[in-house]
Amino acid sequence: MTHFKLTLAYDGTNFAGYQIQPHQRTVQGVLQKALGKMAKVESIHIDGSGRTDSGVHALGQVVSFDYPGEIPARAMRLAMNSLMPLDIEILDAEIVPADFHARYSAKGKRYLYRVARGRFTDPFKRLYTGHYPYGLDVDRIRTALKDVVGTHDFTSFAASGGVIEDKVRTIYEATVQDDQANNELVFEFYGNGFLYNMVRIIVATLLEIGNGRRDVHDFLRLYEVKDRQQARGTAPASGLYLKEVYY
Amino acid sequence: MTHFKLTLAYDGTNFAGYQIQPHQRTVQGVLQKALGKMAKVESIHIDGSGRTDSGVHALGQVVSFDYPGEIPARAMRLAMNSLMPLDIEILDAEIVPADFHARYSAKGKRYLYRVARGRFTDPFKRLYTGHYPYGLDVDRIRTALKDVVGTHDFTSFAASGGVIEDKVRTIYEATVQDDQANNELVFEFYGNGFLYNMVRIIVATLLEIGNGRRDVHDFLRLYEVKDRQQARGTAPASGLYLKEVYY
Repeated sequence: MTHFKLTLAYDGTNFAGYQIQPHQRTVQGVLQKALGKMAKVESIHIDGSGRTDSGVHALGQVVSFDYPGEIPARAMRLAMNSLMPLDIEILDAEIVPADFHARYSAKGKRYLYRVARGRFTDPFKRLYTGHYPYGLDVDRIRTALKDVVGTHDFTSFAASGGVIEDKVRTIYEATVQDDQANNELVFEFYGNGFLYNMVRIIVATLLEIGNGRRDVHDFLRLYEVKDRQQARGTAPASGLYLKEVYY
Repeated sequence: MTHFKLTLAYDGTNFAGYQIQPHQRTVQGVLQKALGKMAKVESIHIDGSGRTDSGVHALGQVVSFDYPGEIPARAMRLAMNSLMPLDIEILDAEIVPADFHARYSAKGKRYLYRVARGRFTDPFKRLYTGHYPYGLDVDRIRTALKDVVGTHDFTSFAASGGVIEDKVRTIYEATVQDDQANNELVFEFYGNGFLYNMVRIIVATLLEIGNGRRDVHDFLRLYEVKDRQQARGTAPASGLYLKEVYY
């Protein structure tokens, strides 16, 4: 038995998300089946660092699993890449201690969000960005991002779900790059954890601030009211990338 | 009646090519139906500068047509973009003299071909590049490109078809850019006309020269032999872009 950590990139467009579901093409499903093929079993269970929704991409998703048998890390990477469809690439394979768990061992994550600007949608960006056709004052967004950094109750920024849980998270870094060559804004968020849809709701709120539809310090009010209805928008899945998981 | 020229970009991934076909999603079909909707008729026939195959992209395809009625060029662009799916963007609309024809008036075309390098396929490039995992000597490719420029009989570089026609074409420019930041080679070909699959066959031949599998001046031999079987490969549709049509 060998315990593995794999780091992978995928284009989320043609997956019904990361998590395995019956009769759906999922990242977890494709990986488990490929590992099963290598080990000549039906399937090998893997643990991911977390789910990504349908259409959400990954530049550095991490999964861990027990592989029945001995195989060097380099051979694991090559064998898995040979079994992967074109929309998944195995970037790295490591043999790790048995107590490593892709989700429970994670100390933090970094997400990237690409927003395409301009009046019309670019056909080549539609699957890989969100699109915002209205005016944006990037300085207002930079000011608001300072309110995102820190430890806050993100209840207003979590998609509603039945499970009661602690909604306090710490964001270590929240930045925006004004990529004028590509006519895009590129956001990055690095934190100790993220609630469901949290990055997409934060980005939608930042765009409304940039457009002047919200007060530049509206985040401070939204932390207080703890009401999902107040932060209405959710930026599209297509712009979101799980960039890195930290251990 | 107003005679229009439209310039458009499209992501060819989800089209069965440019040319209209029954029961298939085609660029021509989508455009003709949208124009028909604007004019409250079934469909309006358009002429394209030429076909693109399934999976081939356009950064500047041109079409022309007669529109029944008066409408300013700017309004035509806005109205058409509002009716376009996300994988087509109308870049420009112009009212042109009645004798303008997207195909017959064309004086030349420019194609771009992107080749992704590296051992593994990048999930985010699979639909937008060809992939070449083997070694390439870019200087050899640059030397061979000098043999591509000029007036040649491109019979060896045309996909076989039943129609007898003149296979002599003139290439004014043939370049390659070594984009190391993106780990890509980007080819451009500007000529007075291109045969079916000609760019994709030329690129496949150039890659074999770059890898050392062919003599660096093999193009000169291939012009002489006039035999499609000698230039065997065809680079994938996904890397090809119709960049500009010249009038």
